[in-house]
Amino acid sequence: MATSTLLIDHFAAIIKLEDSFPNSVSEVKSIADKLIKSLGLTVIKKIYHEFEPSGVTLVYILSQSHLAIHTWPERKTIHVDLLSCSPITGESIRSAINSSFERLRLNALSIKKCEV
Amino acid sequence: MATSTLLIDHFAAIIKLEDSFPNSVSEVKSIADKLIKSLGLTVIKKIYHEFEPSGVTLVYILSQSHLAIHTWPERKTIHVDLLSCSPITGESIRSAINSSFERLRLNALSIKKCEV
Repeated sequence: MATSTLLIDHFAAIIKLEDSFPNSVSEVKSIADKLIKSLGLTVIKKIYHEFEPSGVTLVYILSQSHLAIHTWPERKTIHVDLLSCSPITGESIRSAINSSFERLRLNALSIKKCEV
Repeated sequence: MATSTLLIDHFAAIIKLEDSFPNSVSEVKSIADKLIKSLGLTVIKKIYHEFEPSGVTLVYILSQSHLAIHTWPERKTIHVDLLSCSPITGESIRSAINSSFERLRLNALSIKKCEV
């Protein structure tokens, strides 16, 4: 379906880490804040949840749309979902993820643009 | 990248309506709640934002992951982003969207599975 002039850049990324990932909101918040800064986005509202026994979900409502991060520490896996009405490229999100995760060793990073 | 045994069903949908869409959180919340019920999902936390001059963003953190809805009333357009760690099919989300929007006349509905 043509979205005409409505710009929606939507990316999903799966990050596999070499080492175990701290199961804390503060750790995920730190990564999200770096991503936001790196991509020049603006946060309007924030929400978090820490799952039992492990896993964190963070969602930021942005002036551009939303960022959602889910973690599965036991699988050393993180999912990033970013929807933006300001232009974002695959290269910029790859670069932003790499710099935001610099304290953690990445095993693999897969990024896909979701085009409806 | 292989996600091995980690199940992530991720769908994005764009809905074009025939008529203008009420610019209210309560309207979007009503649709989101129908979607959640129809798909058998469980809401943990909710967050909303009403943009000026128009547009609503709603995000629910689910026990299965998240649901995000963005509206552009001036374009009669709605974007639905659903990430679930419980299996969801394209058919089930199409059926859920159709029934959740039954009070509004759909012009077009496009759904895409986002596979990373």
